[in-house]
Amino acid sequence: MFSQTFPKKTPLKIAVLGASGAVGQEILTLLAERSFPVEELRLLGSSRSAGIKHIWKGSELEIQEVSAESFENVDLVLASAGGAVSRRWRRIINAAGAVMIDNSSAFRMEGDVPLVIPEVNPQALSDHQGIIANPNCTTILLALALAPLAKIAPIRRVVVSTYQSASGAGAKAMEELKELTKDVLEGATPVNTVLPYSLAFNLFLHNSPMQSNGYCEEEMKMVNETRKIMQMPDLPFTANCVRVPVLRAHSEAVNVEFVEPFSTQEAKKILSRSPGLAIIEDFENNRFPMPNDVAGKDLVAVGRIRQDISNPNCLEFWLCGDQIRKGAALNAIQIAELLLKAHE
Amino acid sequence: MFSQTFPKKTPLKIAVLGASGAVGQEILTLLAERSFPVEELRLLGSSRSAGIKHIWKGSELEIQEVSAESFENVDLVLASAGGAVSRRWRRIINAAGAVMIDNSSAFRMEGDVPLVIPEVNPQALSDHQGIIANPNCTTILLALALAPLAKIAPIRRVVVSTYQSASGAGAKAMEELKELTKDVLEGATPVNTVLPYSLAFNLFLHNSPMQSNGYCEEEMKMVNETRKIMQMPDLPFTANCVRVPVLRAHSEAVNVEFVEPFSTQEAKKILSRSPGLAIIEDFENNRFPMPNDVAGKDLVAVGRIRQDISNPNCLEFWLCGDQIRKGAALNAIQIAELLLKAHE
Repeated sequence: MFSQTFPKKTPLKIAVLGASGAVGQEILTLLAERSFPVEELRLLGSSRSAGIKHIWKGSELEIQEVSAESFENVDLVLASAGGAVSRRWRRIINAAGAVMIDNSSAFRMEGDVPLVIPEVNPQALSDHQGIIANPNCTTILLALALAPLAKIAPIRRVVVSTYQSASGAGAKAMEELKELTKDVLEGATPVNTVLPYSLAFNLFLHNSPMQSNGYCEEEMKMVNETRKIMQMPDLPFTANCVRVPVLRAHSEAVNVEFVEPFSTQEAKKILSRSPGLAIIEDFENNRFPMPNDVAGKDLVAVGRIRQDISNPNCLEFWLCGDQIRKGAALNAIQIAELLLKAHE
Repeated sequence: MFSQTFPKKTPLKIAVLGASGAVGQEILTLLAERSFPVEELRLLGSSRSAGIKHIWKGSELEIQEVSAESFENVDLVLASAGGAVSRRWRRIINAAGAVMIDNSSAFRMEGDVPLVIPEVNPQALSDHQGIIANPNCTTILLALALAPLAKIAPIRRVVVSTYQSASGAGAKAMEELKELTKDVLEGATPVNTVLPYSLAFNLFLHNSPMQSNGYCEEEMKMVNETRKIMQMPDLPFTANCVRVPVLRAHSEAVNVEFVEPFSTQEAKKILSRSPGLAIIEDFENNRFPMPNDVAGKDLVAVGRIRQDISNPNCLEFWLCGDQIRKGAALNAIQIAELLLKAHE
């Protein structure tokens, strides 16, 4: 049982799989920033990324092409190279005795894989089998605010509309947004190659594969993952996911129906005491969270908590969070920190 | 009674009040494009705009500073200079015998002022008293899709999230979005002066004045105007309005609860036959309306009509429409065309 034996010792030998990506890069930053106990750091990637150099805590590291040998003697793998890569190396990583914290969606809905937001369901970590899944960015941001409210009063239904940044599609999508925006400003026709349409001064419904129920994969991730994390498998939940021309922070407009009315004052009190959240709420000056407030920041900003005028049992709120940080890399590092803490 | 006597004759003497603004400019374009019967065209504006020249159908016209004399012998005033200006000149315009089609929110909720979307409630025009109000942009786009459905089956509740372009705050806001975006791309700090925050790669909850119920004015306009136009004064309705870094088209994510289930097939059939709408819906290729599809276009694009998985009585759809055109100038011109038609 991994959960009984990990980690055998600190500091850890860590492999970062997908080290050249937006999330991989942020993981490297956070390992240094948070003084994570690292004995050895291996940067792994595809053959395309192999050879790219990265300075980490003053040492030059080079990305190596991932192979079975990459995981020998490694304690912890932080993976953010997509589902196919995670699936391919899963058994080899675990067979080498390493625990994988995986940013992809590959294993999130598997019954014996904990899907963890440290502030929300740390207890789920206790029986992991060597793989711990990091939830989808939109799910993490939402559940941080939803879970504390659900603890106080039962939720009947959730309706969410998202405003998702380019970073969710990776570093190349961020670069493309900047390039195409420059093209539009210079009067040229933007030609997209990374995202399916130009995001320059434009937006579109999330482009993940469409499911037979008319929802895209991103929307169903949000629905299913929130249900799993909050242990509410039948929670009525609808999500409308939209990609907007913002670089690295997601926003969400949330409408929550409770079984009974829930006072906005109480909700604000609860959210202001909940870990991982910061309240930005000034009704008088109409000042609420914006992507610019949270880019590069750890906390998810919540505000404009209000009574829905269309239903006495509904509250509405608005949130913004850094997609790369709390929406991915930070949450993964916090899971690793929780693993260490459990075995101190 | 204006409605009995207007217009006395065609072509008309027309004054465009607020001729230098984004909507005013589009009104001038549409009057020419649609061969509106114009005998004389007067461009009116503030002292700041006075003297600005505009070529209209090959003739050079100059914006004059508005005064009481501006409306002498005018048949029709197309006003888009803001509520204060419309309020100031209302009686003088009507006293001069002219009808005013007003783009501001000044008179929209007055009992004897028809609030008209020609495709939705043309009958409301019949008893106007010299002032006809043009609805808010978000209201027009939404009601075009909502009204045909409400004719078939009673609606219980509407939940909307908007994705509103800079143009809703005027030509200067569009210019600022471009300028600040350029600044960000060049590594400079964007300094906003028109909008309350930089919209460059950023977004924020709509900045119109906050009401005591926690909704901003823009949101309450959408709620109250939709209720008036659809003659459903108690319709439960909540709107979440957000300004996004798009130039001139608004998008809306709409969740409609009916009293009973409403099939998506029937809804699509109805919307595809409804005037003013174009369906852009390709589930297989995940292709739905985008702001880029509708910028500068007359039709409002609707798509991704789907069954809400969280409530059997709810349908969801997504729409995009040009804010300056159908959201303002085109709707005003269509009202004028309807006035002419009624007296042919």
